[in-house]
Amino acid sequence: MKRMRIPATTANMGPGFDCIGMAFDMYNYIDFEPVDAEDYCELTSGGDAGHIDLSKDNLIYQAYAAVFAYLKKPVMGIKMHFENNVPYSRGLGSSSAALIGGVKVANEVLGNPLSDTELLNVALQFEGHPDNIAPALLGGVVISGLDENGDVFYSKITPPANLYCTVIIPDYPLATKKAREVLPQQFSMKDAVYNVGRMAMLIDAMHTGNLEQLSLAMNDKLHQPYRMSLIKGMDEIIPAAKALGALNVTISGAGPTILIVSDGEKDFTSLQEILAKYDVTAKITALHPVNEGAALV
Amino acid sequence: MKRMRIPATTANMGPGFDCIGMAFDMYNYIDFEPVDAEDYCELTSGGDAGHIDLSKDNLIYQAYAAVFAYLKKPVMGIKMHFENNVPYSRGLGSSSAALIGGVKVANEVLGNPLSDTELLNVALQFEGHPDNIAPALLGGVVISGLDENGDVFYSKITPPANLYCTVIIPDYPLATKKAREVLPQQFSMKDAVYNVGRMAMLIDAMHTGNLEQLSLAMNDKLHQPYRMSLIKGMDEIIPAAKALGALNVTISGAGPTILIVSDGEKDFTSLQEILAKYDVTAKITALHPVNEGAALV
Repeated sequence: MKRMRIPATTANMGPGFDCIGMAFDMYNYIDFEPVDAEDYCELTSGGDAGHIDLSKDNLIYQAYAAVFAYLKKPVMGIKMHFENNVPYSRGLGSSSAALIGGVKVANEVLGNPLSDTELLNVALQFEGHPDNIAPALLGGVVISGLDENGDVFYSKITPPANLYCTVIIPDYPLATKKAREVLPQQFSMKDAVYNVGRMAMLIDAMHTGNLEQLSLAMNDKLHQPYRMSLIKGMDEIIPAAKALGALNVTISGAGPTILIVSDGEKDFTSLQEILAKYDVTAKITALHPVNEGAALV
Repeated sequence: MKRMRIPATTANMGPGFDCIGMAFDMYNYIDFEPVDAEDYCELTSGGDAGHIDLSKDNLIYQAYAAVFAYLKKPVMGIKMHFENNVPYSRGLGSSSAALIGGVKVANEVLGNPLSDTELLNVALQFEGHPDNIAPALLGGVVISGLDENGDVFYSKITPPANLYCTVIIPDYPLATKKAREVLPQQFSMKDAVYNVGRMAMLIDAMHTGNLEQLSLAMNDKLHQPYRMSLIKGMDEIIPAAKALGALNVTISGAGPTILIVSDGEKDFTSLQEILAKYDVTAKITALHPVNEGAALV
């Protein structure tokens, strides 16, 4: 058995809707072994992952099979055992972790014929945008998008050493579909330019390590104002977290996880008191940015 | 007499509408000397600058006086002699060069009491956005904008050494006001996200020096598609310049100057043939990014 490890990811980081993501030290694992029987698959799971679909409809297996389809080869038989730690529908890239797990396992059993860009393009067939799959594959902070031909482009940045992240993971899920439905169809030039400027400052801060800039650079006008109402207590969490030393507070991906960034370690556990007022139970935990993406361990 | 030198600037750089600018080695000069007579001013000009208003309505003098207003002090008498090389209404930051010239001269005769941020905020009273004034003051590539309080924020990046710029400066002016009138009021999420992602790649390329990225990162959906028609022959210039080795081609500021970027020196003078078809006479010349902004020389 070989073991593949795939990180959780946060997308958007404020202004970078569908354009940026970052990998964290929270991982899914896949123990896998090829089986000499075309199209055969044996999927098992352990840990918290009791609710995983273990049929061929499993997203990891689907992504695995898609690599063979891309290469126009018969699907090699495989045994996979899943140990999932990235929570579902919380805005921490669980489906991207699944997709990247599947394509990486396939590439591995094939002797790694596909480049990172090819793996992203295969995984992209299941997601509309590469903002979570790119850092899940590559680690670090990754800018990504689709070029004029619909192919993935990306650039990876090593996260600043002192960037400290805390996440509030509530006990309720939020479907990405629902979080997208609340977004308007049209934006003013002012709001578009607002985000372009903040995104520029965000990328600049990732390169220079000038984290103070994040108090401005992680603000957003394209999605957060519309999604805030879906995330219980967030409008009260933001000023409270800043009072505790947060540089900024934003929605992780489509939510409902809240991402708090600070310059070095800070303690945000007292925010539980605010969540309690909204009858929300949540896990408040530090997640560290990691520079390594999906890899054998 | 002291001599102040202020660089020309290009704004937008493709996706960064109102958010970014870069300084060039084309300069305006102001020779100046304080005069011990409150509110006195003696303005003269030389060189190509025969059409400069030499009354107190002159923009350089207005910006000069605004520094005293900001400090709530009487305006010190001044002699200024202008030598202007940055052409008017061509998208190369001539009004920003004037504004920065004025505030820098005032700050100099006062013993430099104001910070760069304060100088930008004073100059900003005359412009709605700091994208040209910031690099005119600071040099280099400068991300800038207004924060939630309406104050200027900025971050400067040293331009990559191999970034080579060529400008096509046509013989006709284009008023910024007219170039703004053609812009739509509303944009789709898709177009907004397009620019956010390109801007991220642009800032990333400025930091890493990976100029190949500019072929994608200097594309824009917020202003260029609407302004192209105001710039004669531009739709034909773009592919022709790329065939000659351009990484990308974009409108400098509000135009009509066209900015061509390449990795190292390339010759674009043969584009004159295309311009001739549109009855446009233009100067095609290299302008080098400079890291020094307005300064005594």
